Amino acid sequence: MPAPMPAVPISEIVAFVGGRYAGPPGRSVDGVAPLADAGATQLSFLSNPKYAAQLTSTRAAAILVSSDVQDDDERFIRVANPYFAMASVVARYFDRRPMPQGISPLASIDATATIGDGVAVGPFSTIGAGVTLGDGVVIFQNVSIESGSTIGEGTIVYPQVSIYDRSVVGKRCIIHSGVVIGADGYGFATQGGRHHKIPQIGIVRIGDDVEIGAGSTIDRAALGETIIGDGTKIDDLVMIAHNVKVGRHCLLVAQVGIAGSTELGDSVVVAGQSGFAGHLKIGNGVQVAAKSAVLNDVPDGTKVMGIPAVPFREFARREAMLRRLVRRKRDSQTGTTPSDE
Amino acid sequence: MPAPMPAVPISEIVAFVGGRYAGPPGRSVDGVAPLADAGATQLSFLSNPKYAAQLTSTRAAAILVSSDVQDDDERFIRVANPYFAMASVVARYFDRRPMPQGISPLASIDATATIGDGVAVGPFSTIGAGVTLGDGVVIFQNVSIESGSTIGEGTIVYPQVSIYDRSVVGKRCIIHSGVVIGADGYGFATQGGRHHKIPQIGIVRIGDDVEIGAGSTIDRAALGETIIGDGTKIDDLVMIAHNVKVGRHCLLVAQVGIAGSTELGDSVVVAGQSGFAGHLKIGNGVQVAAKSAVLNDVPDGTKVMGIPAVPFREFARREAMLRRLVRRKRDSQTGTTPSDE
Amino acid sequence: MPAPMPAVPISEIVAFVGGRYAGPPGRSVDGVAPLADAGATQLSFLSNPKYAAQLTSTRAAAILVSSDVQDDDERFIRVANPYFAMASVVARYFDRRPMPQGISPLASIDATATIGDGVAVGPFSTIGAGVTLGDGVVIFQNVSIESGSTIGEGTIVYPQVSIYDRSVVGKRCIIHSGVVIGADGYGFATQGGRHHKIPQIGIVRIGDDVEIGAGSTIDRAALGETIIGDGTKIDDLVMIAHNVKVGRHCLLVAQVGIAGSTELGDSVVVAGQSGFAGHLKIGNGVQVAAKSAVLNDVPDGTKVMGIPAVPFREFARREAMLRRLVRRKRDSQTGTTPSDE
Repeated sequence: MPAPMPAVPISEIVAFVGGRYAGPPGRSVDGVAPLADAGATQLSFLSNPKYAAQLTSTRAAAILVSSDVQDDDERFIRVANPYFAMASVVARYFDRRPMPQGISPLASIDATATIGDGVAVGPFSTIGAGVTLGDGVVIFQNVSIESGSTIGEGTIVYPQVSIYDRSVVGKRCIIHSGVVIGADGYGFATQGGRHHKIPQIGIVRIGDDVEIGAGSTIDRAALGETIIGDGTKIDDLVMIAHNVKVGRHCLLVAQVGIAGSTELGDSVVVAGQSGFAGHLKIGNGVQVAAKSAVLNDVPDGTKVMGIPAVPFREFARREAMLRRLVRRKRDSQTGTTPSDE
Repeated sequence: MPAPMPAVPISEIVAFVGGRYAGPPGRSVDGVAPLADAGATQLSFLSNPKYAAQLTSTRAAAILVSSDVQDDDERFIRVANPYFAMASVVARYFDRRPMPQGISPLASIDATATIGDGVAVGPFSTIGAGVTLGDGVVIFQNVSIESGSTIGEGTIVYPQVSIYDRSVVGKRCIIHSGVVIGADGYGFATQGGRHHKIPQIGIVRIGDDVEIGAGSTIDRAALGETIIGDGTKIDDLVMIAHNVKVGRHCLLVAQVGIAGSTELGDSVVVAGQSGFAGHLKIGNGVQVAAKSAVLNDVPDGTKVMGIPAVPFREFARREAMLRRLVRRKRDSQTGTTPSDE
Repeated sequence: MPAPMPAVPISEIVAFVGGRYAGPPGRSVDGVAPLADAGATQLSFLSNPKYAAQLTSTRAAAILVSSDVQDDDERFIRVANPYFAMASVVARYFDRRPMPQGISPLASIDATATIGDGVAVGPFSTIGAGVTLGDGVVIFQNVSIESGSTIGEGTIVYPQVSIYDRSVVGKRCIIHSGVVIGADGYGFATQGGRHHKIPQIGIVRIGDDVEIGAGSTIDRAALGETIIGDGTKIDDLVMIAHNVKVGRHCLLVAQVGIAGSTELGDSVVVAGQSGFAGHLKIGNGVQVAAKSAVLNDVPDGTKVMGIPAVPFREFARREAMLRRLVRRKRDSQTGTTPSDE
């Protein structure tokens, strides 16, 4: 069982986040919790204004809030970005996940694999021929990494992950359980009503600082590379097809699907359950609302939504028109004079 | 190979389900099958009226039917709920799935784990430090349970499941292959165009009698707990984000996604491929039609559908209006006089 | 690390694919790449006309093109179906994925399993009682195959796959990582507000030449069989519920879901993220556009789309009507005279 968290002086936290605090000196906190749940020795935070009413009822010992919060409370630690400050504090003081240590004698590691300094490999994990694990890599139990793959320094691979041959994973990545990297893309040549497999001989290349959520699948390229750019964060059960290229610092929320050869620019944000047709070019900074179907190229900086996805303004216009028509019909049936908005 | 099923006297089944039966005494059945497939020594049932025509053609030896079925057949066993009766009979007489027995010498079990009576753990499963497995727990092969987790009495965990540290799973749960419990929620603080990870230090808490279908993912809370209530049944490839709270006796059908911090009441039914935005309150008894996108709070007992989801009646009104407009346009093009419904 | 690919004379490739080639004799290629990436010793191909402009800029040594391409280039190898030809060439000369060889001493294989000639089983894989592995079957590492299952000749099962008891998988199938075959279908009898499990005692039966993409789940039947027909190809994260029957030579693209007991005919094509309600009959040759919701039976040869799905023509009519209404409204607001198209 994990040991109890240590007490950290609030003054140390204030200095660490560069905040303003006018509360009593000498107090400490021993954990972090949401406003509603925090106990009298815990730190909390307000980021989403939806929860502002909880500021008065929370029992938290100290609260990270935005510099521009109007109310006053001696427990406030005022910072520019309370969500980011909270994340930093947790990472620095309260994030103590148990990790495997060293190379388990129950792992199967090919003699030709290259293992960096400080690497951990858990029981029942399989490291294939010619695999390279960079310094500080952590491979949990029950992981499969096939031959010729490279895992960059400091990357963490959780249990039940499958990484096919010749995949390249960058530094400081986090790969959650159930992720599959490098399975065959879905490519068939149909001849006489039969679907003949196109061998998928390309690879997957994942940049640095990428996180991939549980159960997501990133297929290898037919030829060439499927690419995920540096700093991109992928949620659970996302499907990325062969030869897709995702730019840097993108966010792909749960259950998104991207069909083959589509390219996303940098800093693209895709909300949950949306999908992209294949062979599209999606510009930098594009935002896609939840459950949309993107069927055409999208220029830089555009926000789209709908099935098929259209710019926000166009979507809003159609919605307003439909609401008006429904209301007019209903009013005409009830004898009210319809008013045209 | 499993041994053949034993023959069970129909009279015993009639007594067990509390049914009415006027057929010849002394007959037995040795299995259960759908009406269309049942052989002359098998039991069948009619639940969905869509299949009523098969009552005459089926070869089944006996048929569980609703008390109010009009037809008469000496093979009928009349009961209040034939589907429930069939389930009970199968569970009592014909459900003989092979299960691992005892602790495999090929499992890796930490010395500090607490193992209840009658526990089974299959080969290549990893049980971490401080894990508690309650009495009668069955862990199949190739399962990973990380440190500090608790699995309640009688729970079954199928192969290739990953349960992260400190997760709590209740009694009599069934966790299917590929499920991931307790992976990190999708939380990032964006600062200067970079997405900084919010450490996810909360846990997942799953109640009693919960079933989770293959490949579903339930993320741990950022802080606090992600909660699945007692008796809730989750289908395959469902995604439940951090800090979500699902009430008791809910049904979440395949490929549903629930974004962070949304709360579902008790007895909520969500049809397949629907999604919920984050931070919503969904009342008790709410029903969501398939492929809907729920973007707002929903009061108790409401049925919603659509993208975005609206009450059934509102959805129906819009659909009727659209159908009318399309027809009117078509009629005007063909010279027919449009009739206003 | 894989050895470098051997050089193959272009003349040999021309003969193998039955193409026409008028380029200089004596040249060889040592790999295959897309037009944009191909180096001076690689073969490429043009299938999607979208990329025709790359024909002039590519550095490829030889290019598989359609017989009816107008341009002329001494590097062209003209064939009837360049995509199929490329696939054949890759499969014949350049597809050298490393595979496990022989039975690993680290696998757990029940003494009652039947193992064909030339079978490979990787480390930490579990083969249960009474399992049959046909000749040439390849089971990668970290795979679970439960008792009584049968895997046909030449089938490949990648890491982290779970196949439940009594499943039947045909010949020459490819099962990718994370796939779950035979988990319980989602069947409950609700009585007094509680959901009582219907034991799922049927099986899954998969035909020959089926490929199943990463993370897909195919549930066992409640009673009887869930069936996937010969030659059907399933993409990643697809969900197939209990008692579904999928015909032969179907294509199910990523994240599709099919609810219980629905039957698809032969040669059905379902684009990504679409779903089917339960108990439907979908005819032969039906095509379903992406992100559709099929809620009714569909006759042979019909193309449907939308939520709910309707025939293409009906969908197009509604879309045109909506665009017209939005435009008319906008025009009336800006003072333009609306024109009725």
